[in-house]
Amino acid sequence: MPVITLLTDFGLKDGNVGVMKGVIWSIAPDAHIADLSHTIHPQDISEAALVLARAAPYFPDGTVHMVVVDPGVGTARRPIAARLGEYYFVGPDNGVITMLLHRIEGENKRVQFVHLNQAHYWLPEVSNVFHGRDIFAPCTAHLAAGVPLEDLGDPLKNVFRLDFPQPERFEFGYRAQVIHLDHFGNISTNVRLEHLKGHKVGSVHLNGFNIPGLVRTFGDRSPGDLVALFGSTGNLIISIVNGNAAQHLNASVGHVVDIRLER
Amino acid sequence: MPVITLLTDFGLKDGNVGVMKGVIWSIAPDAHIADLSHTIHPQDISEAALVLARAAPYFPDGTVHMVVVDPGVGTARRPIAARLGEYYFVGPDNGVITMLLHRIEGENKRVQFVHLNQAHYWLPEVSNVFHGRDIFAPCTAHLAAGVPLEDLGDPLKNVFRLDFPQPERFEFGYRAQVIHLDHFGNISTNVRLEHLKGHKVGSVHLNGFNIPGLVRTFGDRSPGDLVALFGSTGNLIISIVNGNAAQHLNASVGHVVDIRLER
Amino acid sequence: MPVITLLTDFGLKDGNVGVMKGVIWSIAPDAHIADLSHTIHPQDISEAALVLARAAPYFPDGTVHMVVVDPGVGTARRPIAARLGEYYFVGPDNGVITMLLHRIEGENKRVQFVHLNQAHYWLPEVSNVFHGRDIFAPCTAHLAAGVPLEDLGDPLKNVFRLDFPQPERFEFGYRAQVIHLDHFGNISTNVRLEHLKGHKVGSVHLNGFNIPGLVRTFGDRSPGDLVALFGSTGNLIISIVNGNAAQHLNASVGHVVDIRLER
Repeated sequence: MPVITLLTDFGLKDGNVGVMKGVIWSIAPDAHIADLSHTIHPQDISEAALVLARAAPYFPDGTVHMVVVDPGVGTARRPIAARLGEYYFVGPDNGVITMLLHRIEGENKRVQFVHLNQAHYWLPEVSNVFHGRDIFAPCTAHLAAGVPLEDLGDPLKNVFRLDFPQPERFEFGYRAQVIHLDHFGNISTNVRLEHLKGHKVGSVHLNGFNIPGLVRTFGDRSPGDLVALFGSTGNLIISIVNGNAAQHLNASVGHVVDIRLER
Repeated sequence: MPVITLLTDFGLKDGNVGVMKGVIWSIAPDAHIADLSHTIHPQDISEAALVLARAAPYFPDGTVHMVVVDPGVGTARRPIAARLGEYYFVGPDNGVITMLLHRIEGENKRVQFVHLNQAHYWLPEVSNVFHGRDIFAPCTAHLAAGVPLEDLGDPLKNVFRLDFPQPERFEFGYRAQVIHLDHFGNISTNVRLEHLKGHKVGSVHLNGFNIPGLVRTFGDRSPGDLVALFGSTGNLIISIVNGNAAQHLNASVGHVVDIRLER
Repeated sequence: MPVITLLTDFGLKDGNVGVMKGVIWSIAPDAHIADLSHTIHPQDISEAALVLARAAPYFPDGTVHMVVVDPGVGTARRPIAARLGEYYFVGPDNGVITMLLHRIEGENKRVQFVHLNQAHYWLPEVSNVFHGRDIFAPCTAHLAAGVPLEDLGDPLKNVFRLDFPQPERFEFGYRAQVIHLDHFGNISTNVRLEHLKGHKVGSVHLNGFNIPGLVRTFGDRSPGDLVALFGSTGNLIISIVNGNAAQHLNASVGHVVDIRLER
């Protein structure tokens, strides 16, 4: 059975996510559909890019990842689809693909883009404000049902990419950034395992809080303790055991995190 | 595969939506289930009627739409099922079907109602407070699995209908109402494309805010601009580009919206 | 088709629930997956135990119930799987299974436990902080796909159990406790139908509010009325008709509820 994922900023109260599933199952009746998130902050393309890149590798080959965080709906921004290694992407050409694309390119896998301009794969009537329903959902379903990517539109050489901040190397270690706050209040940074290979973290600093060294997992310390560790996606995270670090440290995406390495 | 949709005011935290899926898959093991919304305001039958009517047309023929917004559970209000053109409805006879029913009747499609009074299609034990689990879910599943509508209960001539306010025509244009506020803060009114055919909108007025004319889509103006346009369901909506109009204009369902037409 | 349920404290915003579905469908491509709840209060094992025990009986035989409320992830607490009558359980050995296990044992059904220590049924890389993705989801999927329970790990004689407070019998009746507050604000207590068989409830008392007798269903009183009745799981609940009793009575889990019986 083909698998489709949905990632939007639609929220769950208005029925619009359900509507897209109706469109999909009208075309690809045996598809499984997994909701990645529908509570991306409205129009926050960067947040959606991060959630997509983290989730995609855990899905079966052939999965179609559809993203509708689309502040430019109805304007000149192009609707696109892509082949990214073993996966497909469908969504607006606004950079939401960037982080997953970098990962796939880093693995030297096949990448291919098309402009979704073949209207017979869309719903018969296309609104100016809901391409998720009228263009992206039907194209996603056709891909999942076996229509070749090339049939959905003209080839594109490249797509729009966002710049994501990278940690900077200083004499003392790394100057990094907060990139995500999760449901538990764990604070994710853009420093990864790869950056710290061969080094030992002396301390981590955020908003005036100082955290000595790294622990292996939450339960290595007592409830309420402030800790730094590697999260499940290989990023360095800052947490409070059984507590909410984001609230306690008043952290926001973009805040500076200094990582001091031991000599 | 049969498709079923669920629309309730149950929220997502207590497991009750999952329980209904367990009941459904016990009877119709190959059904796809789409959640339309489970955060209808508690007991808000009108809101559920609107979400249902907007979503239903995008589902495949044969879809069973089950609605459980049911303040009268356990009282004399009847549990019903209906055939509405290509769709089925299952839920309480409290008017939640009204808007979808009007649409189907307007299309001169076949309509048929039954009183769900055949207890061998229910769970063996029926509580007084959770007919979603004990009556509606099993009847929905039996319908999806191919049991004819007529078998589920005695025929009904008609069902309970709610009155929904219609826009009034005045010399200046239309006096309309706010009927929905979506997740993004878009303000939906009960004026539709059909009302405005052959006319040009001069201005739109709500809570002291005046909006000149209509735009085609959000991206036609700059972030922060207040605009009026046709939403994805054909209703006139009021929005702030990349912002939250409902909050900014302090709008609520039932507020008056005046639409002035150009001479 | 095998059915799997997911119950976590992950929230819905970060994509982690979707990731586990990706892992499951990579192994058991035809499984149906029902979300029970993902908004269990962080680390609240007791709340998850209650939601699981209430929901499980409504699922088809063979359903695998996976629970990830796991404050001890990465520590010595064991990952386990269990056969509980017709159901399977997969999750941490932290007591979340307790209420369902008691029910199954009370029905004299077969119970069997294993320690999930066969790493070839896990993902190749196991993080220290996300066993839901790396251990529980793949083991759940293998169970659903037909791998025998015994293959997933060594047998265990028993598992960790939590103590849940029971109502105490006094001369006047029962001293009970609030055990759950649902989405509507209904207040659930640990007094059940079984406790009150052959008795007539005179009054119910919580936080200085006194409720005379029991009603059959919400609609037996007027909107705004405070009532006590049996909820859909057989527990005595306190409600406000079309209102929010938990807010109005300022109720919390653990509060004392006195039930006075008539002589």
